[in-house]
Amino acid sequence: MSASLSNGLASPEPAVDEESAVLHEPLLAQYQQTLRLRRSQSNTTSQVAIVGSNVCPIESLDYEIIENDIFKPDWRSMGMIELYQYTFMKWILCFLIGLIVGLLGFFTNLAVENIAGVKFVITSNMMLARKFVAAFLVFASSNLGLTLFASLITAFVAPESAGSGIPEVKAYLNGVDAPAIFSFRTLIVKIVGSICAVSSSLNVGKAGPMVHIGSCIAAIVGQGGSKKFRLTWKWLRLFKNDRDRRDLVTCGSAAGIAAAFRAPVGGVLFALEEMSSWWRSSLLWRSFFTTAVVAIVLRALIDVCLRGECGLFGKGGLIMYDVTSANISYHLRDVPPVLLLAVLGGIVGSLYNLLLNKVLQIYNVINKKGISFRIILACSISIFTSCLLFGLPWTASCRACPSDASEPCPTIGRSGNYKKFQCPPGFYNDLASLFFNTNDDAIKNLFSKNSDAEFHHSSMLIFFATCFFLSIFSYGIVAPTGIFVPVIVTGAAYGRFIGMLVGSNSNLNHGLFAVLGSASLLGGSMRMTVSLCVIILELTNNLLLLPLIMIVLLISKTVADAFNGNIYDLIMALKGLPYLEAHTEPYMRQLTVGDVVMGPLQIFHGFEKVSNVVHVLKTTRHNGFPVIDEPPNSVSPVLFGLILRAHLLTLLKSKAFLRTPTQVDRDAIVQFSVEDFGKKGLGHGDKIEDIELSEEEMEMYIDLHPFTNTSPYTVVETMSLAKALILFRQVGLRHLLVIPKVSGRVPVVGILTRHDFMPQHILNLHPIFVESRWKKLRFRLPQLSKLV
Amino acid sequence: MSASLSNGLASPEPAVDEESAVLHEPLLAQYQQTLRLRRSQSNTTSQVAIVGSNVCPIESLDYEIIENDIFKPDWRSMGMIELYQYTFMKWILCFLIGLIVGLLGFFTNLAVENIAGVKFVITSNMMLARKFVAAFLVFASSNLGLTLFASLITAFVAPESAGSGIPEVKAYLNGVDAPAIFSFRTLIVKIVGSICAVSSSLNVGKAGPMVHIGSCIAAIVGQGGSKKFRLTWKWLRLFKNDRDRRDLVTCGSAAGIAAAFRAPVGGVLFALEEMSSWWRSSLLWRSFFTTAVVAIVLRALIDVCLRGECGLFGKGGLIMYDVTSANISYHLRDVPPVLLLAVLGGIVGSLYNLLLNKVLQIYNVINKKGISFRIILACSISIFTSCLLFGLPWTASCRACPSDASEPCPTIGRSGNYKKFQCPPGFYNDLASLFFNTNDDAIKNLFSKNSDAEFHHSSMLIFFATCFFLSIFSYGIVAPTGIFVPVIVTGAAYGRFIGMLVGSNSNLNHGLFAVLGSASLLGGSMRMTVSLCVIILELTNNLLLLPLIMIVLLISKTVADAFNGNIYDLIMALKGLPYLEAHTEPYMRQLTVGDVVMGPLQIFHGFEKVSNVVHVLKTTRHNGFPVIDEPPNSVSPVLFGLILRAHLLTLLKSKAFLRTPTQVDRDAIVQFSVEDFGKKGLGHGDKIEDIELSEEEMEMYIDLHPFTNTSPYTVVETMSLAKALILFRQVGLRHLLVIPKVSGRVPVVGILTRHDFMPQHILNLHPIFVESRWKKLRFRLPQLSKLV
Repeated sequence: MSASLSNGLASPEPAVDEESAVLHEPLLAQYQQTLRLRRSQSNTTSQVAIVGSNVCPIESLDYEIIENDIFKPDWRSMGMIELYQYTFMKWILCFLIGLIVGLLGFFTNLAVENIAGVKFVITSNMMLARKFVAAFLVFASSNLGLTLFASLITAFVAPESAGSGIPEVKAYLNGVDAPAIFSFRTLIVKIVGSICAVSSSLNVGKAGPMVHIGSCIAAIVGQGGSKKFRLTWKWLRLFKNDRDRRDLVTCGSAAGIAAAFRAPVGGVLFALEEMSSWWRSSLLWRSFFTTAVVAIVLRALIDVCLRGECGLFGKGGLIMYDVTSANISYHLRDVPPVLLLAVLGGIVGSLYNLLLNKVLQIYNVINKKGISFRIILACSISIFTSCLLFGLPWTASCRACPSDASEPCPTIGRSGNYKKFQCPPGFYNDLASLFFNTNDDAIKNLFSKNSDAEFHHSSMLIFFATCFFLSIFSYGIVAPTGIFVPVIVTGAAYGRFIGMLVGSNSNLNHGLFAVLGSASLLGGSMRMTVSLCVIILELTNNLLLLPLIMIVLLISKTVADAFNGNIYDLIMALKGLPYLEAHTEPYMRQLTVGDVVMGPLQIFHGFEKVSNVVHVLKTTRHNGFPVIDEPPNSVSPVLFGLILRAHLLTLLKSKAFLRTPTQVDRDAIVQFSVEDFGKKGLGHGDKIEDIELSEEEMEMYIDLHPFTNTSPYTVVETMSLAKALILFRQVGLRHLLVIPKVSGRVPVVGILTRHDFMPQHILNLHPIFVESRWKKLRFRLPQLSKLV
Repeated sequence: MSASLSNGLASPEPAVDEESAVLHEPLLAQYQQTLRLRRSQSNTTSQVAIVGSNVCPIESLDYEIIENDIFKPDWRSMGMIELYQYTFMKWILCFLIGLIVGLLGFFTNLAVENIAGVKFVITSNMMLARKFVAAFLVFASSNLGLTLFASLITAFVAPESAGSGIPEVKAYLNGVDAPAIFSFRTLIVKIVGSICAVSSSLNVGKAGPMVHIGSCIAAIVGQGGSKKFRLTWKWLRLFKNDRDRRDLVTCGSAAGIAAAFRAPVGGVLFALEEMSSWWRSSLLWRSFFTTAVVAIVLRALIDVCLRGECGLFGKGGLIMYDVTSANISYHLRDVPPVLLLAVLGGIVGSLYNLLLNKVLQIYNVINKKGISFRIILACSISIFTSCLLFGLPWTASCRACPSDASEPCPTIGRSGNYKKFQCPPGFYNDLASLFFNTNDDAIKNLFSKNSDAEFHHSSMLIFFATCFFLSIFSYGIVAPTGIFVPVIVTGAAYGRFIGMLVGSNSNLNHGLFAVLGSASLLGGSMRMTVSLCVIILELTNNLLLLPLIMIVLLISKTVADAFNGNIYDLIMALKGLPYLEAHTEPYMRQLTVGDVVMGPLQIFHGFEKVSNVVHVLKTTRHNGFPVIDEPPNSVSPVLFGLILRAHLLTLLKSKAFLRTPTQVDRDAIVQFSVEDFGKKGLGHGDKIEDIELSEEEMEMYIDLHPFTNTSPYTVVETMSLAKALILFRQVGLRHLLVIPKVSGRVPVVGILTRHDFMPQHILNLHPIFVESRWKKLRFRLPQLSKLV
């Protein structure tokens, strides 16, 4: 805990406190003086001013409207017909996304249910014949084979498809374009790998991968195939920009959740609350349409399956744990146990995040050692899981079947509440009913009503602990692994255990406790509110529980927020994705933008020598450069605008050069069309190294004026960082120009990029604020973090 | 229909078309030349530049962070403790809002159910005794009395509380502060008036008023009482700004819907989708908390009522039309009738909006003639309504009670599916079951399952037509009237009628058709998607209908959007509230900000003469003024920042003047605290007319520097209007400074305010774009609009 300070406004002379979280006036003034000195020195030595560092290999996205002579006529000529084309195409694309994601979601489920089903049927039959060793060997080897296949294709074909994918998509929607996350290769590996990983009884889910699959499909569909299909090209031309692609990916992620949980409204809200960083009401409508298509596709396909044409799929797949009971009634005395469950759920959830974070750090070290290490890790987790799943049920004693059971007991075959396992006829093994099943069926068993006496205390505790740790150790392996379903299972076991402890002191049955337990662990780990609430409602089809679920989610989120962050944010930080938060840190109000722009600023003149352009592009990795007009071409130095690296590369490639640095007619523009400057597809960007120029060409000039964005957003250098961040984040910028307060020799003093707003970057520049970082009431767990 | 144009990108020389929606290059250039000329002329004559007109008496809100010497130290000294105070208070305020709105929502319902209940019981008893004339007189006179009381208090005490209030709150959240909409007086009148209006059998709802009540409570609670309570003052000091007040009002509006429909999640989504213009994820969490409190309060109070301690409230009030039926199954052949229903629903919904708009225009003329005219209008609508409600059931023939009715038939007393009315024992009047009831009970009857044979075709058609027109004519009277519930009733009747036509060709029962009909009419009139979907789900407690409801909402919204706009947007436009849309119109990309800033720009110097300040404040109504430093004080003219009218008034009031225009020490600031510059409470703003200054004082100077916002957001004059609008709207600005491209004599060329972005204003300035306004594929209904 950092020291806190209470110099209210009343005290005119605040005490100077070295450790305080807040800088005091004199100290700050002195500090800023030093900074200004440093800056002016760097000004005089390098003869150019200050710029933010953008050294990250990860591309940023740009949602700014670029206004130059190439794009402007494009809008003007965009008449009625093109507007209709655009609108029509956007809806068609959403429809396609919904359709494909719905189909894929269904077939993924079908595949999982059938592969896992066959495995369980074979093993169960062997168990019935009391061939226990053979059963274990079949079980473990099929699991190992599936895991091995999933990790092999992931490691060798598309390493980007490892893990859940939600953090990457979330970062993309924030404006960070990690390489190859939306490639076709990634999509295929994600689908196949996810089916194998889930079927292999690893404690991993398919919701996260489904979100990634949905986003992939959206990105690929929006891109409109390859250049081969000239027909689609023209219609999709208008989508070749970051804004429209972002909208489609948002719809895709909503469709992913809708397909994974058959929760269309929950999917929209998930995309809104967790995934997206910018939101417009038209996007709400469009993602709603997409998930409606998903819901209809699923509904139609399930109709087919209900006729029994889907093999082992039957009534099983596509989670819908119907807990409807006509008369749920709860009263005041039911509230205290629920509150306790919520508080503990929050603590368990934050502990989950903490442990998962630590385990991922360890895995990172292992994974860096090479592909073989990754494969070995995945295989050992699989073998370990098989041993636990097959071994632990032996610790439970056989229980006699209840005489009034609503279904056959013991269940012979795959799913059902009463697994026979090793027990004699008329008895069932309660742990096997949970372990020796798919996660979906385990959740169904835990959520079921009228089964309060089915499970033993100790079985539930063992199941909870095993799920908790297995899901933490399974997430980081090199395979497509989700975390949503494991958290639901673990939470359901936790809630049911609490329900057992409360016993007859509550009117709620254990199935409802399991639902609330899932809600509390989800809230404690994922930290969402509305979307989780709606997803749980859509999963359980019971609206009467709503007030209790709302309380549980709010409490568990609040409790967990006191310890650490959202699980996806932690993973994003581990992956080094520069996520830009919507809120500002308190110290950002104490710094001006002038305090963070650093390093040499590369500027171009309106007429720039080709060799200069090539040199700058080769020596820096900046993506935007201010263009200045100086005295021979203007009365005083004028900031003409901002030019993008991608556009410079296009210019160099086309060799539209001039012999002299003078104004020319507009012929130069005519040779370009908007398509030349459109956002390039994935991996199709030009590189400066690929452009070859003769020495003669190097001595020529380029007229940058027509290609420069003449109205970039600017802020004055005295603006606080917090205020600039609001502009940067709300408008979705990639570059923000800093102009001087007093118009002097240079009309621009620097460029702010995403990295200049990263807390880590700012705190490195200004370590004096490090202490104030712990501004939130957040209890760090020193003992625990040292233990792990 | 406007002329459309197809000059694709391919054609290098587009044909010149005078009527085209799109301006062509040469024409535009010539036009812009003229504009520039006009501007430079106005520059030379008035010696000052151009500014947007802000002549609207309605205040705008300002979400910009003001960075001046007064506010800056305030943030710096805002240490840990104040941050905790702030966070804690925000949650406490949300809790209070939820608690109060929940209680009010419950008691409003209780009052309506009891007042209307007593009325119906007395009338029904008279009908039983066959005293029909006396029954009508009691019915009509009690309705008239209630309506008269509601309209009297509305007209004389708080005219702002007339109507639904949703448009005003929506405009407030967009940044338009209509006078007195959140005053305590408005709140009280809204509560009492709404109870009376709804009890008086007018076809009006209580959801809209509930949203306004919730927002009022939020605004009042956030303001922290009056200056008398010094204790709360300090803690609430941090909330005296537009941003925090906006957040609280958003939570309040969510709580309003949550209380009206017992739909907590729907309330959050309603606030998100329909009400708010700016949204942050923390707001989602906070409004979720607020509605959770509402849900819990309602749940607890209903528990009390279920014990029968709430008079006639019983199981009636607080809408929850439980249509759960275990086995809803629908197949492909059920889809075509649903699609038909959705398309027709969209048309009927847009027709509803069109007619309501016309009727409101006529009412506006009547209402302007004086208060007595308003009262007479309200009373005549009440009498007319009573006649219809009592008279129309006589047209229906008595129907024999079904032998297998699930409830007593005919119903003796207030609610129930089978009203006796004039019929002999063993018979019921189906029209009376709908008309002679509260709206809530009518909806319940229409939504009920297993009642397919209960209503006759003609009865349903009469009920639909009557509701449709009555709700249109009732909305505009001078009383708190909502529109949500009337649309649900009308839609339910419409859906049930369609269901009757479809008959046995569908598996869906008529109750489900009624639900879908409500959805289609809501979608066609209010044009929401996710929020309506969740509200309907929460009302009907049936998730299996979800895919159908989603299709219906999407189709009806799409169809209706082709004809006209959202009902609330139409009402806002009628009220002249300058609502700033999130999307940009195509012509905004063809105009630069320089093209819209007009009129003389009032600027101040860093050291300004008091008499100048007073003169400018008296002669203009501008709310922000650029502050310029000129050569004696700086090397070249420098834009120092922007000062607000409110802050100038505070300065003049405190008389912190200087004898000479020179730099002084910072003593002047010390005498001010942040509270002096905090946003004033409702109606507590200073006026320039109230400030008296001696002649000597008028000759002195004010040092504006410490009070000027030194880092206002700026845009360059060549930026397109569309791009500036994105900044203005996304960041929530009140003033946007326009700076010149080339730094010249004046460092600022104008100020953009909300009005400069209003399409009407822009089209007045540039009539050449008027034709292009009909850019959307929107069919205007010329015949219809002429008929009405």
